[in-house]
Amino acid sequence: MPENKTALVISAHAADFVWRCAGAIALHEEKGYDVTIACLSFGERGESAKLWKQEGGTTLEEVKKARRNEAENAAKALDAHNIVFFDLGDYPLEVTRDDKFKLVDLIRKVQPNFMLSHSQYDPYNTDHSFATTLAMECRMIAQAWGHNPGEKVLGAPQLYLFEPHQTEQMGWKPDVFLDITSVWDKKRAAIECMQGQEHLWHYYTNVAENRGNHFRRNSGGQAGGRAAKYAEGFQSIYPRTVDEL
Amino acid sequence: MPENKTALVISAHAADFVWRCAGAIALHEEKGYDVTIACLSFGERGESAKLWKQEGGTTLEEVKKARRNEAENAAKALDAHNIVFFDLGDYPLEVTRDDKFKLVDLIRKVQPNFMLSHSQYDPYNTDHSFATTLAMECRMIAQAWGHNPGEKVLGAPQLYLFEPHQTEQMGWKPDVFLDITSVWDKKRAAIECMQGQEHLWHYYTNVAENRGNHFRRNSGGQAGGRAAKYAEGFQSIYPRTVDEL
Amino acid sequence: MPENKTALVISAHAADFVWRCAGAIALHEEKGYDVTIACLSFGERGESAKLWKQEGGTTLEEVKKARRNEAENAAKALDAHNIVFFDLGDYPLEVTRDDKFKLVDLIRKVQPNFMLSHSQYDPYNTDHSFATTLAMECRMIAQAWGHNPGEKVLGAPQLYLFEPHQTEQMGWKPDVFLDITSVWDKKRAAIECMQGQEHLWHYYTNVAENRGNHFRRNSGGQAGGRAAKYAEGFQSIYPRTVDEL
Amino acid sequence: MPENKTALVISAHAADFVWRCAGAIALHEEKGYDVTIACLSFGERGESAKLWKQEGGTTLEEVKKARRNEAENAAKALDAHNIVFFDLGDYPLEVTRDDKFKLVDLIRKVQPNFMLSHSQYDPYNTDHSFATTLAMECRMIAQAWGHNPGEKVLGAPQLYLFEPHQTEQMGWKPDVFLDITSVWDKKRAAIECMQGQEHLWHYYTNVAENRGNHFRRNSGGQAGGRAAKYAEGFQSIYPRTVDEL
Amino acid sequence: MPENKTALVISAHAADFVWRCAGAIALHEEKGYDVTIACLSFGERGESAKLWKQEGGTTLEEVKKARRNEAENAAKALDAHNIVFFDLGDYPLEVTRDDKFKLVDLIRKVQPNFMLSHSQYDPYNTDHSFATTLAMECRMIAQAWGHNPGEKVLGAPQLYLFEPHQTEQMGWKPDVFLDITSVWDKKRAAIECMQGQEHLWHYYTNVAENRGNHFRRNSGGQAGGRAAKYAEGFQSIYPRTVDEL
Amino acid sequence: MPENKTALVISAHAADFVWRCAGAIALHEEKGYDVTIACLSFGERGESAKLWKQEGGTTLEEVKKARRNEAENAAKALDAHNIVFFDLGDYPLEVTRDDKFKLVDLIRKVQPNFMLSHSQYDPYNTDHSFATTLAMECRMIAQAWGHNPGEKVLGAPQLYLFEPHQTEQMGWKPDVFLDITSVWDKKRAAIECMQGQEHLWHYYTNVAENRGNHFRRNSGGQAGGRAAKYAEGFQSIYPRTVDEL
Repeated sequence: MPENKTALVISAHAADFVWRCAGAIALHEEKGYDVTIACLSFGERGESAKLWKQEGGTTLEEVKKARRNEAENAAKALDAHNIVFFDLGDYPLEVTRDDKFKLVDLIRKVQPNFMLSHSQYDPYNTDHSFATTLAMECRMIAQAWGHNPGEKVLGAPQLYLFEPHQTEQMGWKPDVFLDITSVWDKKRAAIECMQGQEHLWHYYTNVAENRGNHFRRNSGGQAGGRAAKYAEGFQSIYPRTVDEL
Repeated sequence: MPENKTALVISAHAADFVWRCAGAIALHEEKGYDVTIACLSFGERGESAKLWKQEGGTTLEEVKKARRNEAENAAKALDAHNIVFFDLGDYPLEVTRDDKFKLVDLIRKVQPNFMLSHSQYDPYNTDHSFATTLAMECRMIAQAWGHNPGEKVLGAPQLYLFEPHQTEQMGWKPDVFLDITSVWDKKRAAIECMQGQEHLWHYYTNVAENRGNHFRRNSGGQAGGRAAKYAEGFQSIYPRTVDEL
Repeated sequence: MPENKTALVISAHAADFVWRCAGAIALHEEKGYDVTIACLSFGERGESAKLWKQEGGTTLEEVKKARRNEAENAAKALDAHNIVFFDLGDYPLEVTRDDKFKLVDLIRKVQPNFMLSHSQYDPYNTDHSFATTLAMECRMIAQAWGHNPGEKVLGAPQLYLFEPHQTEQMGWKPDVFLDITSVWDKKRAAIECMQGQEHLWHYYTNVAENRGNHFRRNSGGQAGGRAAKYAEGFQSIYPRTVDEL
Repeated sequence: MPENKTALVISAHAADFVWRCAGAIALHEEKGYDVTIACLSFGERGESAKLWKQEGGTTLEEVKKARRNEAENAAKALDAHNIVFFDLGDYPLEVTRDDKFKLVDLIRKVQPNFMLSHSQYDPYNTDHSFATTLAMECRMIAQAWGHNPGEKVLGAPQLYLFEPHQTEQMGWKPDVFLDITSVWDKKRAAIECMQGQEHLWHYYTNVAENRGNHFRRNSGGQAGGRAAKYAEGFQSIYPRTVDEL
Repeated sequence: MPENKTALVISAHAADFVWRCAGAIALHEEKGYDVTIACLSFGERGESAKLWKQEGGTTLEEVKKARRNEAENAAKALDAHNIVFFDLGDYPLEVTRDDKFKLVDLIRKVQPNFMLSHSQYDPYNTDHSFATTLAMECRMIAQAWGHNPGEKVLGAPQLYLFEPHQTEQMGWKPDVFLDITSVWDKKRAAIECMQGQEHLWHYYTNVAENRGNHFRRNSGGQAGGRAAKYAEGFQSIYPRTVDEL
Repeated sequence: MPENKTALVISAHAADFVWRCAGAIALHEEKGYDVTIACLSFGERGESAKLWKQEGGTTLEEVKKARRNEAENAAKALDAHNIVFFDLGDYPLEVTRDDKFKLVDLIRKVQPNFMLSHSQYDPYNTDHSFATTLAMECRMIAQAWGHNPGEKVLGAPQLYLFEPHQTEQMGWKPDVFLDITSVWDKKRAAIECMQGQEHLWHYYTNVAENRGNHFRRNSGGQAGGRAAKYAEGFQSIYPRTVDEL
């Protein structure tokens, strides 16, 4: 049973967690959470164009290895020591019943206080929305008292959807902004581990800056909003339960 | 300038605040908030059928007086000492530019940490959705540095939409549940002040009980959800800004 | 107090009721309903291009008179003897509080079993959606016991939205199809009263035929759908209350 | 070929039909319908927490047997004599092409006048929305003249979505309320057969009472709504075809 | 590598492309495009009622052959010489990973400037929406540099959703109308190849005429809209990239 | 009657057009369009915080003058020589029937090939969505043959919604990206005219860069997307009419 608070990131491809929630990972690690990152695939076929384009060619195994390295380095940069690779294949990502149960095993082991995954709709990348569907399904199975009776069942962790590329096309609407100013350097370091996607470094720095603006606006605006410089946005699937509004 | 934390309820008719957020009012009063209740009208024409049906007839002024009494008693039962009646008329509720500015004056005076009003759509009761449109518009005006320059401008308070009748028809979706178990007796007492709408007492007791179930589910369910007996649900308009997910 | 069953059509412009629900009008007249048609304007400015284009010019009064004639003839063709012209002006259609109360008077006088009006959204023609907003607001006022106390208040009639032009752009989705085969000749006769909009005769004949296809599909399709040749579609605003599914 | 009118309930787990449409079942049985209940699984893994928690442990088969007993007893309490268990497993519910064809066989055998199943979206319970997707797919197959040629093909029965738990989270919006006052005692008796989920008895009694209020409102409200005490709500997927609005 | 501009139609059943985008096919062939039509199935089980009903019976193979003939004739009438039959079966249409890769092969071979498929939702016909889901998934795979490395990867072609039957029930909203007046005779000829579905000839002629009206309205209306007589409507999935608004 | 192609921007406050569509303005001016910018208000009360905060105070007239200067300078930087100030007031922006007719006069004078305005929903700033509602209403009036008969009526120009702040909160979804690389320097120069809102310069530079990325993705991505460095996004209200997909 975990002693610390915990969180679980379910990332369709090896690099998704970096662009989309590296700040949340680093920040919660700093707060004492144990954050586990589950990479369902390496993005080896669909998100490794630079590697495939290199002169002399490459192989699937080499690409997977390179992507694994990048992801592990990025996790390290975030002080996240639990990164798990399911190696389920990508473009398309498909799963068997057994694969589902392995993910359930991880969910139950982690007992996350909250989960993070992709937007529910993505017409550019069906692996992404599939990962979220899978996250919901496995969350449900992990709550079942009749699944591996005797194991500790899962509670009701929030599922946050992290920011997709081209948010408006995905129907993604953030309802919470997280101030990641204090861990921005770590996120930037993790981003720079993604050697194969250098064209996205600047893009996601812009995103973080502009989400910082949204944080300031929504925390008070011209009349005293907090001076966050970098932020990340998330969409919640389930309602919150609180003692104070 | 208020010293305590504050909240502002904008209620289209005198009784709306009772059914929909009396728990939130009582709970936040207990926590030291100063909660102000703004009743835009008394609901004198459209929500006082019992009074109009009484033998011997009645007058608009009598109805308004009776409704005012009920609302004041309900507020007292919730320990809310700030209740303001705008007397703008109902069925339909209509406002002038001056009326807007009076509401802005109140918003600036209260400087609410959060606001509460109706659902954004209500095909049964256009006064309700109009009140929310008005709340958003006046929130905007209250933020304007050029409106009554020198006054303290408003920050960026959340606007929570409280629970309408027939939620699904209104397109209302709660994203936060508030545990009101500790103040349920006060809410029930406030409800019982509504002598003219006794047919709703049991209805809203059922609602509070069932929202308690939703609180339990979303706080952990079968695996340790908190034993809330009564709850209220709210829909947020603006994203939250947080330091931890 | 009406003895027959009754219905009320609220038409933004004089001709709208013809294209959109003439079949429903004629059919319910045949069934013994008294159907009242309320034309909020004549469509004199915005829907009378042919009249304005005629050589030698025309005047607003002449256009209104011509449009009134067409609408009255169309109503006659449908055996609808109650047609009321509010003459509120069009493009844009705007109303005062008094105008609202006049429409409420009519609603209460008719005591409709159901009402008919436009789609809730129309980016081409804001008069149309305004008419529906108005219909909902006046329905609410007509239900208020404190509005003209002593008058019979309104029950809870359904509000059907009739078919707009370019349905998909309006977000209109029919949930009920009405077989108008038996009164098609009357609808076509009413359509032919619209001398100024001959370009729409064939269009709305096509619509009626194709809605007939939808009627057949949804009443059984290849396995015994009813052989309706002409139909009209409507979207309901409120839930139905039934004794059998 | 059935002589009576018929209906078919497609329930993801053994108990779903009780909470969600037991009133509709009992009422239509009273009206002479033959109602068939298809339980795709027993809910043995995911909805039987109480059984799994009992001291001394249990087995999957014992749980299934207990759940089957409860469901059969509930059906009896509703005078529904046709209950079919597909035993497809739950959490997650998954089907083969053969399973689909078995459900198609049942649909064709029953030739339902209408069908009942779950909401189209359920982020808490993906089995539920899966059952509805399956119901739509099998309805389509049952209409195919080339599927088992010679068999009587299906017409175009309505598919009603019964009330999910936490309706607003599911995007479920009822468009029809059914008065179940006359059969409430049977529904309550069926509910009490669910020994393993006693915490829901009171919850769904509250739901039925409050839906009764909605029935009253939508059938006339303060001006003569019918005095229904208990009701159930349903969302229709397909448009209706009618002869009168 | 294709020299001409190209387009790819993905049709769930053999006849879908005729009703829904035959005009687009013929028009783009005239403009020098090579249009490829991919029929995922023949619609042999679910859309060939007339063949199955014929006296003396028939077989699946005979139905497939007849449907293939009709589709080939229709393609010829449109001057489309590339028609491919995947023969994946219908009602339900289901695919393996290999089937996906075969469709990817075709997409890469065609290198379409744009693609055409069904609406994203269809509660009457789940094969239709499945085809579009598949089209999106295979478009993504075709873009993957790691899928069959060395092949030319796909760019970012638009995916247009062609017009479904009962558009409003499918949530389909056209954002582009194509003038097909000049090729209407070819479309009508293609339609008349569909001997088994003669009941739809008139229906889709009506559709083309009424879409012509929409074309005229949106190209200028009473003030100079172009005199299109026949048109087809399409909904775009992805944003356009332009040099001029 | 204009000889060149024309466009009309309807901007709620004086600066809105700069952040949101300065690129489109400059680009179309370069292409020979005459672009007219209509500022409904100066944003004097609500969007001039810096001016109101300055030591020694200021007056409404001074603020309006300063804002007018900034807007005129920005227009000049874009080579847009037609900028019109309606001075209708802001926070809230409200209009009379006469104000509508003045905007109609401008629309008819410009005879725009396309129009640009705000998103349809903005819970932060109701002036914005009001401006779009007004734009639609006045577009309709301008099309009416009976409005100032004899004047040239309006055709059917597209209405593009330019990018709001916090796009996802506004329900805004771009369906077209415009490459503004060639005029970026002008847009940046116009942005730097906004002395009172320096905190937004960097923000909207980020936006333009990231929209450039979206342009590249949607014009071909890794397989040959065009190397746009800066772009603007727009959402269309009306369907397009085309001769080629």
